[in-house]
Amino acid sequence: MAGDTYGRLFTVTTFGESHGPALGCVVDGCPPGLALSEEDIQKDLDRRRPGRSRHVTQRKEPDRVRILSGVFEGVTTGTAIGLLVENVDQRSRDYDKIKDRFRPGHADFTYQKKYGLRDYRGGGRSSARETVMRVAAGAIARKYLHERLGITIRGYLGELGPFELEPVDLDIVDDNPFFCADPSRLDDLEQFMIDLRRAGDSIGARINLIASGVPVGLGEPVFDKLEADIAHGLMSINAVKGVEFGDGFKVVRQRGSEHRDEITPTGFAKNSSGGTLGGISSGQDILVSIALKPTSSIQVPGSTVDVHGNAAEIVTTGRHDPCVGLRATPIAEAMLALTLLDHYLRHRAQNADVK
Amino acid sequence: MAGDTYGRLFTVTTFGESHGPALGCVVDGCPPGLALSEEDIQKDLDRRRPGRSRHVTQRKEPDRVRILSGVFEGVTTGTAIGLLVENVDQRSRDYDKIKDRFRPGHADFTYQKKYGLRDYRGGGRSSARETVMRVAAGAIARKYLHERLGITIRGYLGELGPFELEPVDLDIVDDNPFFCADPSRLDDLEQFMIDLRRAGDSIGARINLIASGVPVGLGEPVFDKLEADIAHGLMSINAVKGVEFGDGFKVVRQRGSEHRDEITPTGFAKNSSGGTLGGISSGQDILVSIALKPTSSIQVPGSTVDVHGNAAEIVTTGRHDPCVGLRATPIAEAMLALTLLDHYLRHRAQNADVK
Amino acid sequence: MAGDTYGRLFTVTTFGESHGPALGCVVDGCPPGLALSEEDIQKDLDRRRPGRSRHVTQRKEPDRVRILSGVFEGVTTGTAIGLLVENVDQRSRDYDKIKDRFRPGHADFTYQKKYGLRDYRGGGRSSARETVMRVAAGAIARKYLHERLGITIRGYLGELGPFELEPVDLDIVDDNPFFCADPSRLDDLEQFMIDLRRAGDSIGARINLIASGVPVGLGEPVFDKLEADIAHGLMSINAVKGVEFGDGFKVVRQRGSEHRDEITPTGFAKNSSGGTLGGISSGQDILVSIALKPTSSIQVPGSTVDVHGNAAEIVTTGRHDPCVGLRATPIAEAMLALTLLDHYLRHRAQNADVK
Amino acid sequence: MAGDTYGRLFTVTTFGESHGPALGCVVDGCPPGLALSEEDIQKDLDRRRPGRSRHVTQRKEPDRVRILSGVFEGVTTGTAIGLLVENVDQRSRDYDKIKDRFRPGHADFTYQKKYGLRDYRGGGRSSARETVMRVAAGAIARKYLHERLGITIRGYLGELGPFELEPVDLDIVDDNPFFCADPSRLDDLEQFMIDLRRAGDSIGARINLIASGVPVGLGEPVFDKLEADIAHGLMSINAVKGVEFGDGFKVVRQRGSEHRDEITPTGFAKNSSGGTLGGISSGQDILVSIALKPTSSIQVPGSTVDVHGNAAEIVTTGRHDPCVGLRATPIAEAMLALTLLDHYLRHRAQNADVK
Repeated sequence: MAGDTYGRLFTVTTFGESHGPALGCVVDGCPPGLALSEEDIQKDLDRRRPGRSRHVTQRKEPDRVRILSGVFEGVTTGTAIGLLVENVDQRSRDYDKIKDRFRPGHADFTYQKKYGLRDYRGGGRSSARETVMRVAAGAIARKYLHERLGITIRGYLGELGPFELEPVDLDIVDDNPFFCADPSRLDDLEQFMIDLRRAGDSIGARINLIASGVPVGLGEPVFDKLEADIAHGLMSINAVKGVEFGDGFKVVRQRGSEHRDEITPTGFAKNSSGGTLGGISSGQDILVSIALKPTSSIQVPGSTVDVHGNAAEIVTTGRHDPCVGLRATPIAEAMLALTLLDHYLRHRAQNADVK
Repeated sequence: MAGDTYGRLFTVTTFGESHGPALGCVVDGCPPGLALSEEDIQKDLDRRRPGRSRHVTQRKEPDRVRILSGVFEGVTTGTAIGLLVENVDQRSRDYDKIKDRFRPGHADFTYQKKYGLRDYRGGGRSSARETVMRVAAGAIARKYLHERLGITIRGYLGELGPFELEPVDLDIVDDNPFFCADPSRLDDLEQFMIDLRRAGDSIGARINLIASGVPVGLGEPVFDKLEADIAHGLMSINAVKGVEFGDGFKVVRQRGSEHRDEITPTGFAKNSSGGTLGGISSGQDILVSIALKPTSSIQVPGSTVDVHGNAAEIVTTGRHDPCVGLRATPIAEAMLALTLLDHYLRHRAQNADVK
Repeated sequence: MAGDTYGRLFTVTTFGESHGPALGCVVDGCPPGLALSEEDIQKDLDRRRPGRSRHVTQRKEPDRVRILSGVFEGVTTGTAIGLLVENVDQRSRDYDKIKDRFRPGHADFTYQKKYGLRDYRGGGRSSARETVMRVAAGAIARKYLHERLGITIRGYLGELGPFELEPVDLDIVDDNPFFCADPSRLDDLEQFMIDLRRAGDSIGARINLIASGVPVGLGEPVFDKLEADIAHGLMSINAVKGVEFGDGFKVVRQRGSEHRDEITPTGFAKNSSGGTLGGISSGQDILVSIALKPTSSIQVPGSTVDVHGNAAEIVTTGRHDPCVGLRATPIAEAMLALTLLDHYLRHRAQNADVK
Repeated sequence: MAGDTYGRLFTVTTFGESHGPALGCVVDGCPPGLALSEEDIQKDLDRRRPGRSRHVTQRKEPDRVRILSGVFEGVTTGTAIGLLVENVDQRSRDYDKIKDRFRPGHADFTYQKKYGLRDYRGGGRSSARETVMRVAAGAIARKYLHERLGITIRGYLGELGPFELEPVDLDIVDDNPFFCADPSRLDDLEQFMIDLRRAGDSIGARINLIASGVPVGLGEPVFDKLEADIAHGLMSINAVKGVEFGDGFKVVRQRGSEHRDEITPTGFAKNSSGGTLGGISSGQDILVSIALKPTSSIQVPGSTVDVHGNAAEIVTTGRHDPCVGLRATPIAEAMLALTLLDHYLRHRAQNADVK
């Protein structure tokens, strides 16, 4: 299958551009009998929505989702679920500046070379607006995981520029514009973002994810280890440049006697592995973390070339997120949910009769 | 397809356990007309081979590969290539100790729970011995990439425990047991490994990879971004806990004005992105790095449980690598080669007539 | 991937039920640069449309298609194409009769057992209304095949009940409600269908397809022979019970000396094979034929059971096609187009540099 | 994945040529805990083996299978199963005649054009010898289906040239060289085949398959209807030119009132559908039938061209089957078994918790 489909058994296939009429997806393979309403999906979409605070793009998109199929009398039927979100605020502005020149850090150059042409309006398909449908599909996966298996998936801002942020209270994550779990740092973040916006610049971030209640046994031995598929999903999110599990890159300096998670009759002594052994979930929390680069659309002038190869200068003046990481938490949660449900179904297919 | 197949168009499907009679794979989708001999593959297998130095497992495996199909009169025919490597040194030792207890950090626990049983001889399918076939298949991909597209893929040891190692001279990588590119650090590494072995412990490592000559255009916009698929492949290697591209996790603290790679009429000004934009190769070097955890099989006693859930102690006494990272360079290169060739064919399928 | 996606490289993923708000699909992997308008797709949709003659269902569906993504300034961009057709005439009638009983020959029984519930309104997902999206996606494939490769795909009614129909003039196929290519039989067909409708019964049909201009080389040696994939696509159309290529089932009685297509310096002497050798297109016309069962929704009363397993009687009174075969020609053409383009891209991926 | 892999969850990936050193496959996704020995597989291989009677090729191949992985202490482990069969009787004869000319009805022409070269020894990959691995993998699927689900799959010769053969006694199928279930026709078949061999010609055949005990619910609504995937599998067998289910092509002349299978409290009144409704198994027997063309390798001289396009004559003198249909029964049974198990696992993945 081509690259707009994710998953093997529980799949999502998306379409839509930043400035096209609509975004949509097909969610296939969902088990039947799951109670599902538009509101169930809308809740997650609202967490990702632009304009949610002054620190993100001010594009006004209600992002109202419609379920077009696959749900009957309030429950999933087991057949394909069609979802649609109309674009409302495709501001009809002048794209002449970016039409003929490649914005550094953006996909303009590579799309033009790969396809011989590109939809330059707001980045077209390369826009992070595409992630609307990841969140919509992920909401369905997340609901199944939670209701049927007791799995919860939570993310929070782990770092933003110079700030390292602890998961002090995960319950406040949805109550602040940063998805920050440390209430003592909210004012600092607020001020930092105000200064950043004034400077016309952007900043990177780290998102940490925790999946709890994951049963033992998800993942396959060789190429489709659970981490491999989770990494695939997370690394496919715009701006992600790194993925790590458990102790992550710290393992480089660890000794085996330090790293290994000893096992006791009451469970694992710690969780350096991040919840997998041999690529298969161990029943511990899945711990995974991603690095997001700073937004490339900034007001600091930069050098580039135009489509003819001539030197040019670029300044981005549109509506943009100064920290793409700020809205990435629900997107990352969604990709983790999609991957876990897909592997749950794969596991059940092969091993349903294991005692 | 199930989890022992990698790739979409250029695929490898592997089988084999640590202590079974043989390891093998099917390489499918290889373009026809590529000159290919067993020696072409053997060269890469020899780089990965156990017993290559005193710092790796002393298991004596010649790892001689046989081509069983898909090559006729010295060139690939376009049909499935079957490869086989017989296991020779499956030492018939006593497995009773690990038969009934789960080694911490190993897949014993998760395989037992997932499948209800496991081949406990040397880890069975979860053994890193499985990677023989990744290297064999990768050698074919690498040869095509090099001969037809001028792509070279090189890896080296970037870190080992406390040592950070620079790519001073990539030409010496194959001439030392560490795949180290910094000649001034070889003695230190030697002494460190001797001390480590004496302590009966193991150590983590980082491998850096560079793919040069990659054409613009590989990768797909959404879920199959080039980094996503590379991350999938690399994260599926035993012991890998992190993957990062370009500046990797450093991007968390970068500003957009610092991170973005400006473009000039003579090319990109730098390569913080690691060779992709919007998930598609930009023509710059692909720069990717992985973290490998320290081997879990160590002689330092540890706590665990047996299959009945009772507390037990474990000491690993078999032949093992004190640093799995030491042999990971050719494996990681192979996975990168497989991913790049697969995406090259995918790109060509869709865009062969783009001018 | 789940079962609502067709193809490997050029893929279509569909959703939508007979009485839901809309039908839609995502067409992925389309080469960029193809001129494409809604009208290009509409032409084929209009050929399939209900209410086109008095011999098909009188449901009033304009079946207007909207392109929601993947096309920019009149050409395909290479990214996912989203298509949507709204349902207009979901007559709000009384479904109580079929809600609780299984219509013989329909999917009511199997959906209920498989999923534990079903959307009984007009058959839900099992309705042939699903084929709207096959035709829409097929129109894109067909356009590429024709414009870039000179391939034409034409179908016609080969048999209808007792009538065997010759391809006298393929140009009249679109000008009569039967997709019949024999002008001398139109009156007989007309009368037969009138009598059939009066009897409240339905009739089977055969559709023949011819793909001309197919280059040599499409198809793969073993499981994905061109016929295998074409058969898959055609057999997935509602009501199809048989597929045959070239001489088809007649080969059972043929001798090798009679069947084989001898080759001369000017080409093949005949085309008993139907255009493939060893599963790969030979450059001859692809000749394939399908059998469609008579519609199960008829006014002749029949025996069945209700959802509780009790005996019941069923009479279908809704709007239905007395011969599903009458509208199957554009659907079958579409599936053939999708399969050929997918295999063309697969072939090009592997063999683009074969001289 | 490329074209040498069959299935989604229970997959088989094969390799090997007629005159290469060996044939092999990887069977992936097999549920763990299935008792499996080489003898279990050998039984089916022996039914397909060349030299089994004087009416098939006299090539002497013991076709002894080795299990190289995936089985431990007599049961499947859930990991990849590697199977190998060595070629023994690759007679080193003179291939000069077919090296430079294309045998009509064979894949010589299409392979040469597709790949730019071909392994001409005995047809290389296009040889029906490839089907050894279908039977080997199918034996595993069949064992699971029978032991865990009570499904039996039986095939028999339905027609051979002018003979229509009834399923009088399926228990005699394995006791005669024709897989014929009608004891009264064995002498006629014997004489017919002797005459045919004398004439140096070949003959077509029909194989009928019956799968009993298939649970309700296998198959998916749209593109992966159960018949679509079965048709794919069967049509991928060498020489197959047609597939039909239930009443098959006879439905063309049927009325709806005649075709539909009415339902009673004790079950379906008949089985015209061949065991599916809406693409999903109904619990009735799956009835499917295939047409196999006569072998193209005959001693009757024929016209062809050489690789330079010049007219040439061809006479096949090697060891060949005068009726490829004679050995096709176990192969067709194997493909049906593979498809049913794959769909069983797919169904279980999505619907395991349906009540």
